[in-house]
Amino acid sequence: MSLLTSVDARTSRVDDFHALLDEALHEFLHARQDLATELSAELRGLVLAGGKRIRPTFAWWGWRAAGGAPPVDAVVRAMVALELLQCCALVHDDVMDRSATRRGRPSTHESFAALHRRERWAASARRYGDSAAILVGDLALAWADDALVTAGLPAEALSRAWGPWQAMRTEMIMGQHLDLLAVARREESLEHAVRVAALKTAAYTVERPLHLGAALAGADDDVVGCLRAYGHDIGVAFQLRDDLMGVFGDPSVTGKPVGEDLREGKRTPLMAIALSRAQGRPAAQRVLRRCLESGTVSERTVRDVCALLVELGAVAAVEEHIERLAVSGIAALERAAIDDEARHELVRLAGRAVARTT
Amino acid sequence: MSLLTSVDARTSRVDDFHALLDEALHEFLHARQDLATELSAELRGLVLAGGKRIRPTFAWWGWRAAGGAPPVDAVVRAMVALELLQCCALVHDDVMDRSATRRGRPSTHESFAALHRRERWAASARRYGDSAAILVGDLALAWADDALVTAGLPAEALSRAWGPWQAMRTEMIMGQHLDLLAVARREESLEHAVRVAALKTAAYTVERPLHLGAALAGADDDVVGCLRAYGHDIGVAFQLRDDLMGVFGDPSVTGKPVGEDLREGKRTPLMAIALSRAQGRPAAQRVLRRCLESGTVSERTVRDVCALLVELGAVAAVEEHIERLAVSGIAALERAAIDDEARHELVRLAGRAVARTT
Repeated sequence: MSLLTSVDARTSRVDDFHALLDEALHEFLHARQDLATELSAELRGLVLAGGKRIRPTFAWWGWRAAGGAPPVDAVVRAMVALELLQCCALVHDDVMDRSATRRGRPSTHESFAALHRRERWAASARRYGDSAAILVGDLALAWADDALVTAGLPAEALSRAWGPWQAMRTEMIMGQHLDLLAVARREESLEHAVRVAALKTAAYTVERPLHLGAALAGADDDVVGCLRAYGHDIGVAFQLRDDLMGVFGDPSVTGKPVGEDLREGKRTPLMAIALSRAQGRPAAQRVLRRCLESGTVSERTVRDVCALLVELGAVAAVEEHIERLAVSGIAALERAAIDDEARHELVRLAGRAVARTT
Repeated sequence: MSLLTSVDARTSRVDDFHALLDEALHEFLHARQDLATELSAELRGLVLAGGKRIRPTFAWWGWRAAGGAPPVDAVVRAMVALELLQCCALVHDDVMDRSATRRGRPSTHESFAALHRRERWAASARRYGDSAAILVGDLALAWADDALVTAGLPAEALSRAWGPWQAMRTEMIMGQHLDLLAVARREESLEHAVRVAALKTAAYTVERPLHLGAALAGADDDVVGCLRAYGHDIGVAFQLRDDLMGVFGDPSVTGKPVGEDLREGKRTPLMAIALSRAQGRPAAQRVLRRCLESGTVSERTVRDVCALLVELGAVAAVEEHIERLAVSGIAALERAAIDDEARHELVRLAGRAVARTT
């Protein structure tokens, strides 16, 4: 018997949420394998290759925090939607950023372009690759909604979940657009960088998944408010930690070459703080701007920028900010009337954001 | 008082469906105008600029055909989803086809690229334009689902509608992918060309909207089966008529220059029939293939291909096929236990597909 169908009896006492989620992902994709074959095969490869399942995990703990009313199997099936939405975001992001790889394999547009070249098809391989990737992302987005609506949730639970689900999709898209605008407009303000982090990571990755999970369990406004406050703070802290890892992280942990984020000219809060602290130091400003604006950044520039980020106190400022966010996030949890096991787990997840794992 | 909120009293006796739909479109987009501002402004421009509202119209008559149970206002609001889905299809299609214009104005990716150039922003204008257009399409697709789920339909009606809605989105994406593959693989078979027409136009534009409308009204399997049979036949007929118009149509009617479809190398059933009839005539085959495979086609080639399409009997064969499809589509309607006014209107719509309006 499958885990997913036998789980009702154990209701919310299931620890191995990831095994349940994997089963639900397989089940959903298996039922659709004859549709849009080449596109759905790529999608299946992406989804089943792994990933940290961060969004479903926060949704699960949001649901558990609010009492985790059954049916558990329907709730797990609903969380498939979050992984599919993330697939859409990754595939379309890679087209927009022209990223050649994703999780150690060719990105979707690269892999369809390679197929085109291998088969010696007509017209442009790059255009075919980009087009097929746009369609894979569209399929992931459409199927995300299908996963939520057809999960077997009671009608009232689905209706409660739609508000956060609606907000999450729109905020993800807004966050990606703000990210594009930041590069285009050469944004340097800390305010803009934090706003992008709040939308792209906090809202989309932590706050709204928690909100969605809590809504499925019928949480009241107080519980939702506390979970969202925690989610906002921990989400921004996650992003700030990720920004530090992207510059200083061990490549064997991050899976990215040293200084990758600097080479991509990412407009992070870290860089915004450095730029603001470099006022009155034209040489330092020049090095930072060269890094943000040029397409190719030398090893030497990467080294100089790393040194400047430390020297200007930007790293310390970001570390302090992460600390403050973790404290306020955890405080929001402490005052919430939620399940204790969930509280414990959410505190642990907050700790992981704060921990310097480099 | 708005049309939409006062319409309940008149239930299904509303003739001016397009006025109701426009009000629902305005209402939906107005409520979201503060979200993702630049992207939603573009989306609003696209949706409210007009278009023929073909898909909501078929959905409306599918609903009417099956008895059109109230609430009418929720049904009209649900049909906003079909226009938003079509927006996603058009915007992403224009990126994939690199089309510079749409309905006489710059296509979405062109208009964002022009903004980038005007503002002298950093990095590539083309890449910014394509990226913003991918996001506008994603927003349209996400909001399409929101429109259907938040329309205010009774839970059972929403649940009945989800099957056809799910199928419609997947079939649209599959159809676009088959279209890409046809060009890449230099497909010449009539079978493949008809399959693309069946998915891209018949299923997505006629059959599934009718199915969705009928499902909202709680139609039984017999009624759904007859409407879908009609929808398939009339949908393919529409596409075949469109293909003829794309080659021979009056530019003042089609809005496209003479021979536009030939210049784009579209792999239509019309071209497939011509190629198959040109067997044993190598000179004719060369002209047809040159047209399909080269990026730029001369005036002279367009004229030669037009002459060949007539001479080989491909035009007559397509006209006959349209005729046969219209007859079988109308026959499917005749045997259906549906509302008479809807039957009358659907027969009229079928007639429009068959009529040579060039």
